[in-house]
Amino acid sequence: MTSELYLEDFTVGQRFVSTEHALDVAQIKAFAAQFDPQPFHLDEAMAEKTFFHGLAASGWHTASITMSLLVKSGMPIAGGLIGAGGELKWPQPTRPTDVLRVESEVLAVTPSRSRPERGMITVHSVTKNQKDEVLQDMTTKMLVWVRPE
Amino acid sequence: MTSELYLEDFTVGQRFVSTEHALDVAQIKAFAAQFDPQPFHLDEAMAEKTFFHGLAASGWHTASITMSLLVKSGMPIAGGLIGAGGELKWPQPTRPTDVLRVESEVLAVTPSRSRPERGMITVHSVTKNQKDEVLQDMTTKMLVWVRPE
Repeated sequence: MTSELYLEDFTVGQRFVSTEHALDVAQIKAFAAQFDPQPFHLDEAMAEKTFFHGLAASGWHTASITMSLLVKSGMPIAGGLIGAGGELKWPQPTRPTDVLRVESEVLAVTPSRSRPERGMITVHSVTKNQKDEVLQDMTTKMLVWVRPE
Repeated sequence: MTSELYLEDFTVGQRFVSTEHALDVAQIKAFAAQFDPQPFHLDEAMAEKTFFHGLAASGWHTASITMSLLVKSGMPIAGGLIGAGGELKWPQPTRPTDVLRVESEVLAVTPSRSRPERGMITVHSVTKNQKDEVLQDMTTKMLVWVRPE
């Protein structure tokens, strides 16, 4: 399914699977240095002595990779992926050897009452590694457009 | 308040204000190229024709800058800032001219029932620009430790 999707194209229960992204130590440290400079995201030896018992990616790095997979491959919404917000959980740390993919399911499709040209979809996106362990569980509301006539 | 904070140091209603981070076009495009490659985050001219009517930062960029401000200046939790997840909203786009700061308030302090050495705090963090407009509204649960004897 590669064409651009409009409100009419979405149905509850519809599923999308992204391509994969392989993480590594360098990516984890580069993101952390800029956005989450804490020892457990920056230094393997120091990370061993922390809650994480080893280097872990910032949760915001996991979230950002998830977004990149959704944009590149996960869900071809016409007009782009525009989120109003969401809920997210990180049930376990993302590690340097993890290969991430995102599995998404449409939970709701809601036409706008006041704006006939648009609507919202509620999407549950689970980010997993190569062992099918859940690294992030996210539910977002995204803007979708009615197909132009 | 710069010392490291333990469970006993947190109270409901406690507030923290971060330092500031000035955004610009180059930062917005660099983040977007890596994590959210969509026209409204990458190209001023194309962005004009979209929902955003001009270049806007990825919501995940706003979230990541928020984390960097919390880590560097927002809330000195002993052992680091470790979140289990949260809820976030982006009420309006973050723009290249925005200067971001984060205002946080403790909503709840919850000792662990099963693990006497730890607890959780629920924190409401609002990311604002220099005009006091709310760019992100986030509530997170963060791990905190009981002060060692």
